[in-house]
Amino acid sequence: MTDQGRNTSHADCPVALTIAGSDSGGGAGIQADLKTFTVLGVYGMSAITAVTAQNTVEVADVEVLPASAVTAQIDAVMSDIGCDAAKTGMLATAEIVEAVAEAVRRWEVPNLVVDPVMIAKSGHKLLADDACETLRTRLLPLAVVVTPNTREAEVLTGHAISGPEDILSAARELCCTGCRAVLIKGGHLAGDCDDYLYQAGDDAATVLPGQRIKTTNTHGTGCTFSAVLAAGLALGASVLESAWLAKHFVTLAIAEALPLGSGHGPTNHIAAAEALRERLKPNE
Amino acid sequence: MTDQGRNTSHADCPVALTIAGSDSGGGAGIQADLKTFTVLGVYGMSAITAVTAQNTVEVADVEVLPASAVTAQIDAVMSDIGCDAAKTGMLATAEIVEAVAEAVRRWEVPNLVVDPVMIAKSGHKLLADDACETLRTRLLPLAVVVTPNTREAEVLTGHAISGPEDILSAARELCCTGCRAVLIKGGHLAGDCDDYLYQAGDDAATVLPGQRIKTTNTHGTGCTFSAVLAAGLALGASVLESAWLAKHFVTLAIAEALPLGSGHGPTNHIAAAEALRERLKPNE
Repeated sequence: MTDQGRNTSHADCPVALTIAGSDSGGGAGIQADLKTFTVLGVYGMSAITAVTAQNTVEVADVEVLPASAVTAQIDAVMSDIGCDAAKTGMLATAEIVEAVAEAVRRWEVPNLVVDPVMIAKSGHKLLADDACETLRTRLLPLAVVVTPNTREAEVLTGHAISGPEDILSAARELCCTGCRAVLIKGGHLAGDCDDYLYQAGDDAATVLPGQRIKTTNTHGTGCTFSAVLAAGLALGASVLESAWLAKHFVTLAIAEALPLGSGHGPTNHIAAAEALRERLKPNE
Repeated sequence: MTDQGRNTSHADCPVALTIAGSDSGGGAGIQADLKTFTVLGVYGMSAITAVTAQNTVEVADVEVLPASAVTAQIDAVMSDIGCDAAKTGMLATAEIVEAVAEAVRRWEVPNLVVDPVMIAKSGHKLLADDACETLRTRLLPLAVVVTPNTREAEVLTGHAISGPEDILSAARELCCTGCRAVLIKGGHLAGDCDDYLYQAGDDAATVLPGQRIKTTNTHGTGCTFSAVLAAGLALGASVLESAWLAKHFVTLAIAEALPLGSGHGPTNHIAAAEALRERLKPNE
């Protein structure tokens, strides 16, 4: 954690920054991130990379912002407020990935979670093809933890993933970029929804076991997962503790997902936080 | 309330839409609105009009979106999800005001709260001069309630306001545009922070009394106020009930405001909601 760019102690209220796209439907993007930060007691800020016109069915319009506008947003908040953790989501273009990496490095942004968002739940491409390599070489080295699903891990490594052994080898390979940990989400594989946390230097990955919930209302699960991780780190938890928190939170948010819209409905951040609080209550 | 464009019942989770600017610092704009909706148990969606690079001191950069992109966002969410209430904040240009009025009319958006945002706490102009008249003639007639502070009410009516009598006459005049109620916030006048709710056809305004809190951390109070109003209406409360809720919530949010940044710090949505819940608890 660095004190650069911070004018106040955040002890009373940890601060997290999301650098991502805007989802008008409110289920993913900076909207999901800010909701997640808020229900976990973390003050949320944002640098928007692209404004989408989106609902539970489709991405109807995308306005990508100039890279200079993304830099201006990060500079505005880091120069005045600072942050205890940050996450990246949809970065849209190679220019924006470059700009974000430059700003993260310049401000020494602490506890960076990189969610290598590539494709929306509805199938819409959210990262230009030529931006994947920039993301791998420029941004991954700055991350405390990177959170690809198996498809994103396949694109980033160039190797097919069909089971736990492939996941461990992909995670090891991604750690060679310089990031400190890789969390690969197994939800797209057949069977259970186990996730795998590999920390640089370890022999094995920690399995975060999960059971598949029968629902199509999973819009924004990836955004929410990485937002909980960032919130956990902002609150002072370790990467492993934050990963467990993220796994539990997202499972509860899917279980309580909202049947809104006619496509993939959004997960329920409010109910997930309430359920978590209920579980953590001391016996009376 | 209309059912147009709604695919599901929102009974389990009321839905509110904010049409406003983005504040990277997280204290105002759609960020304040989404945080407010969330802590009050309302599902939040957004249509972004402009992306600002902003902190507690200044607005460093503004990227205004094309009016067509604002329409696309409103269309995306209204065609698939619908909403139980909506609010407008920073609308930036006359073209965007026109586009928002057209979309609100076409989708028969229910329970519209219009916050006629003109100037940021830091002094930056957020609405073009030629857009004020468009806002008055095109958008105000569609509102259930309009929430100017005294300065905005002066601009909208063209008359100086120096006390409660001027406020009542300004509120009556604004109601002639066709909106159903006007809530004028008295915080910029000397003395206490009383607000005034005037409902069309009434003889007098209801005074919502408030005491001035000694703090400079008031960034986003106006956005938060109108967001609570919209959330209240989405939850099924009356305009008067929602106005009381907004007055109490914002007072608590200012009392617990966060000392973040070196300018006007943001109000505290999380603490305000907790304090409200504590007050509403039955005696044990």
